[in-house]
Amino acid sequence: MDKVNRQWLLKARPRGMIGPEHFELVESALPRPDLAAGQVLVKTLMLGFDPAMRGWVMDEPSYLPPVPLGEPMRASGVGQVVASSNPTLPVGTLVQGLLNWQEYSVGDPNQPLAPVRPLPPGTGPGMALSIFGSTSLTAYFGLLDVGQPRPGETVLVSGAAGATGSVVAQIARLNGCRVVAIAGGTEKCQWLREACKIDTVIDYKREDLAARIAASCPRGVDVFFDNVGGTTLEAALANMADFGRIVLCGAISGYNDETPAPGPHNLMNVVTRRLRMQGFIVIDYLPRAAEAITALAAWVAAGELAWREDVQQGFENIPATLQRLFDGRNQGKQLLRLADPE
Amino acid sequence: MDKVNRQWLLKARPRGMIGPEHFELVESALPRPDLAAGQVLVKTLMLGFDPAMRGWVMDEPSYLPPVPLGEPMRASGVGQVVASSNPTLPVGTLVQGLLNWQEYSVGDPNQPLAPVRPLPPGTGPGMALSIFGSTSLTAYFGLLDVGQPRPGETVLVSGAAGATGSVVAQIARLNGCRVVAIAGGTEKCQWLREACKIDTVIDYKREDLAARIAASCPRGVDVFFDNVGGTTLEAALANMADFGRIVLCGAISGYNDETPAPGPHNLMNVVTRRLRMQGFIVIDYLPRAAEAITALAAWVAAGELAWREDVQQGFENIPATLQRLFDGRNQGKQLLRLADPE
Repeated sequence: MDKVNRQWLLKARPRGMIGPEHFELVESALPRPDLAAGQVLVKTLMLGFDPAMRGWVMDEPSYLPPVPLGEPMRASGVGQVVASSNPTLPVGTLVQGLLNWQEYSVGDPNQPLAPVRPLPPGTGPGMALSIFGSTSLTAYFGLLDVGQPRPGETVLVSGAAGATGSVVAQIARLNGCRVVAIAGGTEKCQWLREACKIDTVIDYKREDLAARIAASCPRGVDVFFDNVGGTTLEAALANMADFGRIVLCGAISGYNDETPAPGPHNLMNVVTRRLRMQGFIVIDYLPRAAEAITALAAWVAAGELAWREDVQQGFENIPATLQRLFDGRNQGKQLLRLADPE
Repeated sequence: MDKVNRQWLLKARPRGMIGPEHFELVESALPRPDLAAGQVLVKTLMLGFDPAMRGWVMDEPSYLPPVPLGEPMRASGVGQVVASSNPTLPVGTLVQGLLNWQEYSVGDPNQPLAPVRPLPPGTGPGMALSIFGSTSLTAYFGLLDVGQPRPGETVLVSGAAGATGSVVAQIARLNGCRVVAIAGGTEKCQWLREACKIDTVIDYKREDLAARIAASCPRGVDVFFDNVGGTTLEAALANMADFGRIVLCGAISGYNDETPAPGPHNLMNVVTRRLRMQGFIVIDYLPRAAEAITALAAWVAAGELAWREDVQQGFENIPATLQRLFDGRNQGKQLLRLADPE
């Protein structure tokens, strides 16, 4: 076992684009080996990246406390138990949880905020963080519970080539909805058409978004699942059907703005078209995670669900990998591999 | 009976503040006396004014078709039947409906869009248009059905001295909620405190709105009923409790803008605080009107509900009276009396 624990600590709170300059790579001592009862020492194997992490570094009260300056950056990951005082998690067990940007962490399955829990059987680190990870739970509960699409309705998804959006689009298709997907770039759009079997895909980098939504949704949009915000939300609001639902999942277009951009000019459409616009956080749905995992696993087994993993390498590349989400370079779920299971 | 029918026709679609210059006063012939079976000829006694009328003159598809140029302005009113081919509505009956800005109209209780219907027993023209009118139905269904406040929750209301807002604030109080009301000017705030028995009233013209909301709602706002939009909505969004609900009823602050103002900068709070923001139109609730009228009548009979009527006079003053809503001069439900019942 290594003697040191490398960590990326939050050094400064970003204003504008987040980058490596906001983090500091340090070598700490390994967490002390005398584990309390129930605890395990976990070696990080793979880290997951999510746009929501941009919000976690802001010094504002939110659904999770801000990551403190001088502490390892919060992140979900998969690891392997290398020392254990917990008989349910013996050495060698693969676990997931908020392992953070560090090579080793001490976990406890009974911790309230960030329990470590074993991976579903037959699942490797990549799948645990991608198709069975929090982005897929976000897609499942956000679309079905918040959006409540009915078969035959038109579902519009932004950020549709991302880890969350691509699962939203496919679950909507599997529920008998007409799906219109918005993504940026030929490659992503092609993947949505061919692998995800989405009929109508809009490339917002090459097309007039509002006009294409209007042309693709002649009876209006019944459910809009928004990961992007900004002008994308405005274009969707212009094309909502009466009694439509807007699932506000995130607004990646604005996460790195120095000052928040104004909201849509056409919010009055929420009144005149009787829309419901609702936000949600996947953490609230974790008690129901098994329901989503079961459904996702069945679709995966049936070959009905496509996904892809964008796996970077190297502890030193962690902060730069986060940036890939914000310039759209990632192709699928953004991951970074630190080590393989032993 | 008069030989002519005076009408205010929509002459031009306003950009910016609506005013008398957008209407034309004409004298037409009386509607022909040979009424079809079921029809009645109605003499307008009183007209009601509502901020929503500003939207009806826009040339945009909405929940009602735009008022055509050259046609009488759409408006609700109370009138008296002066000629009848309908045995259920004999001459002398007081009726209400969309009578429009004209002295006489032909009505039919079976018309789909704008039926005329008899007034509730014991109700005069003022009460029919104010405390039992569409603004009160808006308050009742918007608060209870859309907002779903629970006893003990904090309900924030903007435009709280208006016909809708004042009824919202009082129904919230009668449902056991803590009520914080926002209005403009000492007189309106005093009326809310003394007549409507609202404990916490914020004068947005004299106080820092966001700071006062924060101080008045230390655990956050559970339900925000918004009639105003703009910076008022932004101030409320900054102070919502987790899982709060925002009832979007209207946005009077922007109705006379030449170009729509941007939306709130802090819409991301809808995500992080898991808010539901929902619009509605009272027309959808008209099939359930009796439920609201019954509840309102019981509160009125028990002396639990205060309201006031701002009654202007004179057919020639109709367009100027509409403006009173937008500069906040109206004190209570804005009405205009044309004639008394015979």
